Amino acid sequence: MGSTVRAVSESLQARFLGDGEVVLSGISGIRNAKSGDLVFVEDEKSLAPALASGAAAVIAGAFAAEKSPAKPLIIATQPRLAFARAAKLLSPGRDHRPGVHPTAVVHTSARLSPGVAIEACAVIGEGVVIGPGTWIGSGTAIADGVSIGRDCRVHANVTIYSGAQIGDRVVVHAGAVLASDGFGYVQDKTTGRREQFPQIGRLEIGDDVEIGANSTIDRGALEVTSIGRGVKIDNLVHIGHNCQIGEDVVIAAQTGLSGSIVIEKNVVLGGQVGIGEHARIEEGVMLGGQGGVLPNKVLRGQGVAFWGTPAQPVREYLKQLAVLTRLAKRKGKAVL
Amino acid sequence: MGSTVRAVSESLQARFLGDGEVVLSGISGIRNAKSGDLVFVEDEKSLAPALASGAAAVIAGAFAAEKSPAKPLIIATQPRLAFARAAKLLSPGRDHRPGVHPTAVVHTSARLSPGVAIEACAVIGEGVVIGPGTWIGSGTAIADGVSIGRDCRVHANVTIYSGAQIGDRVVVHAGAVLASDGFGYVQDKTTGRREQFPQIGRLEIGDDVEIGANSTIDRGALEVTSIGRGVKIDNLVHIGHNCQIGEDVVIAAQTGLSGSIVIEKNVVLGGQVGIGEHARIEEGVMLGGQGGVLPNKVLRGQGVAFWGTPAQPVREYLKQLAVLTRLAKRKGKAVL
Amino acid sequence: MGSTVRAVSESLQARFLGDGEVVLSGISGIRNAKSGDLVFVEDEKSLAPALASGAAAVIAGAFAAEKSPAKPLIIATQPRLAFARAAKLLSPGRDHRPGVHPTAVVHTSARLSPGVAIEACAVIGEGVVIGPGTWIGSGTAIADGVSIGRDCRVHANVTIYSGAQIGDRVVVHAGAVLASDGFGYVQDKTTGRREQFPQIGRLEIGDDVEIGANSTIDRGALEVTSIGRGVKIDNLVHIGHNCQIGEDVVIAAQTGLSGSIVIEKNVVLGGQVGIGEHARIEEGVMLGGQGGVLPNKVLRGQGVAFWGTPAQPVREYLKQLAVLTRLAKRKGKAVL
Repeated sequence: MGSTVRAVSESLQARFLGDGEVVLSGISGIRNAKSGDLVFVEDEKSLAPALASGAAAVIAGAFAAEKSPAKPLIIATQPRLAFARAAKLLSPGRDHRPGVHPTAVVHTSARLSPGVAIEACAVIGEGVVIGPGTWIGSGTAIADGVSIGRDCRVHANVTIYSGAQIGDRVVVHAGAVLASDGFGYVQDKTTGRREQFPQIGRLEIGDDVEIGANSTIDRGALEVTSIGRGVKIDNLVHIGHNCQIGEDVVIAAQTGLSGSIVIEKNVVLGGQVGIGEHARIEEGVMLGGQGGVLPNKVLRGQGVAFWGTPAQPVREYLKQLAVLTRLAKRKGKAVL
Repeated sequence: MGSTVRAVSESLQARFLGDGEVVLSGISGIRNAKSGDLVFVEDEKSLAPALASGAAAVIAGAFAAEKSPAKPLIIATQPRLAFARAAKLLSPGRDHRPGVHPTAVVHTSARLSPGVAIEACAVIGEGVVIGPGTWIGSGTAIADGVSIGRDCRVHANVTIYSGAQIGDRVVVHAGAVLASDGFGYVQDKTTGRREQFPQIGRLEIGDDVEIGANSTIDRGALEVTSIGRGVKIDNLVHIGHNCQIGEDVVIAAQTGLSGSIVIEKNVVLGGQVGIGEHARIEEGVMLGGQGGVLPNKVLRGQGVAFWGTPAQPVREYLKQLAVLTRLAKRKGKAVL
Repeated sequence: MGSTVRAVSESLQARFLGDGEVVLSGISGIRNAKSGDLVFVEDEKSLAPALASGAAAVIAGAFAAEKSPAKPLIIATQPRLAFARAAKLLSPGRDHRPGVHPTAVVHTSARLSPGVAIEACAVIGEGVVIGPGTWIGSGTAIADGVSIGRDCRVHANVTIYSGAQIGDRVVVHAGAVLASDGFGYVQDKTTGRREQFPQIGRLEIGDDVEIGANSTIDRGALEVTSIGRGVKIDNLVHIGHNCQIGEDVVIAAQTGLSGSIVIEKNVVLGGQVGIGEHARIEEGVMLGGQGGVLPNKVLRGQGVAFWGTPAQPVREYLKQLAVLTRLAKRKGKAVL
């Protein structure tokens, strides 16, 4: 029930100025801060509003350290990061009581570690393994043989097919579908009809991955779809079979990856991006919203931003847009 | 079990021509109209087919009022609107019997008003409040503290996280996810790894809102995501944290809004539109399908249509497309 | 528990070379083939790696028939197709035990054929009809009056509204929503507010259709939405009310169709395609990823590829992109 400025500072390995005994009971934004709240500022111009707000204390950068503060200050080299960490202490979210709800259906062969919580109407298949402290939301269906690590949160109404192996501290938001069949067919040349190509591979998800609501990730066809450690995936994203996503990749909402794509580590994909099969996005590339990459293409360049369909370095794409705008204006005046 | 032409006309506050005692038992389109059906026409050329159809009666505009009709006519200033309202009388949809299904799991502290219907395997958390006449479909999971108004329909397999407050007569279609965590992280500059920025704000949904199947709306990070009265959202739409959607906004399928966007009232967004963070779409703007708006941009103009990425007034965008087409044709003839 | 090369060849109506008594226990890709696996090759250059792999036998085309093989070879005119069919023999997927799980909720009036399997917490409404051998996954909700054919697989957490009629051997992946309300409103000209236009039509799905995870298909408003035999739909696809999709159409992930669109048979739509209402895509057209079609437009041409927004024959579109690139480069050198 709250923590002092001194205790929060110690946990953040940060120093504080002012009264260390002030009690913090939660976090908030500056505009809606109320008594007991901790807020943060990243620049000097936000400091005065923060100090004038209802907040009990402020996390700020070194720029604030010489002032004689009206409120306790916690001085952090990365104020936003310190705030995010303080939030886990002060606003830890609901505590899920360990145990299996009586309406959950857990196969007798499933192995649940200590501290696992299984909510109402969740369905856990044969041979499933769930690590310590992991929480499975209500209505979630986990098929035979799936393995899930420790301290994961799998929200309500998620579906995980057989063939998925999930690391530690993974968060899966509601409605996501993992390890579903990939989209692969063989057309019979004599009848024109399509039959499913086997979709019996696996899906491996690393530690500290987050998967947004209603996103879908298909398992490999014959081999594996893999999502690296620390990957963050927004809502309604689609990842096709056999994709390899490197560590710390960020994928914004509604982006779609067809099959057998390689996304190297630290790539950032904006929203509604579309990437064709067998493309490769190399380390550190950024691709702007709605950008499109053709099958088999390679985008390359640490920190280089691409945009458009087909995706080009953003400087070149903006030049093209500018030329087109100018031409259209000129032609508008001439006889067309 | 059916209603006379006279009774339907009275309920619509419309006049009728012909036999008011004809009994109507349902609604339909003109092509598949059968005995007892009510149909509608909005223009003179559709009137003859409607009168020749199997329908029992026709709603039409004033243009039809002077004819001597072969069938009863209900004369309305807005025939399509009158038809939609008549449909509620004649084809009211399934009546949900109030009560809690024995397989539903309702926390003892939840407050269910009279007339509430909770279907099989729905899960209602601690402190949830549900208004009179509201229906909760099977498998739907409603987390602790959520409040839902009166006469809402929340279809099957919906997930609502804590922090959501929902108005009256709201319809949430199957698979939608409301008040999920927003997509916000802080990257630790020393390790390069990302940690979640707190996503503990709220989601407020006004009266008469409709949310399509498998759409996702995130709650605010520290503050609120708000959806105004009368907003209509199609399937597979994504709305990020801290967005403010004004009254009577229409959002077609697969459109995505990243964080902290303001959409003012009466805006119409086509399908697959993408909008960057902190953009503002001002009152009455229309944005065509697949249009894209960059972060921090403002679109302005009551009734002005925009299109393209980046979105421009549609007239200018069409000029650019025309210039480009012409240049490509000309160059095709020259030596390239 | 495995099958000989001879038996697999017979079932494929193919001939084999080498030892027909070798036992096959599964399928795999060449790179991860292990003892007992069957693999396939489509061209001569893949044959040596396949023969050098750990696989027990290889399916290959006639090009391989003259060699004296190091492993048994099954010679097929369509090796990939033969492999897909062999997979069904050797890796048949989980066998669903017929019967109704005690936690499933099945209305007494529902008619379940022999061999039907209903998993935990599935909810089957009044008057539902389910054909022989069909499997309904856990948490799936099937509303009153829905009919489903034989040998279908409806995965977990699917929602099917009333009004759906589904053929034989249909696969519906997890989280899909079928026969939901279309997105149609009437705006009251006096108040500016919108009321729902009736969405009471039907959804008809033909035999051998596959529908991807979290896809949504709306039922007709007054008439019918229809999905033809053999249509394959990827994940997160949206199909609006009254659409007519012809036989053997393929629709990749995240594509969206608004209302009343006609897609004729054998059309292939790439991912993230968007099509406006009342458009018609004629037989055999291919439309590239992220392509857009305006309302009421017609695309025509057996085997013709279209791309871009608005969609154009791909040759013309590529010319436009090339002209624009050239102009931007030239202008970059001139004084702008």
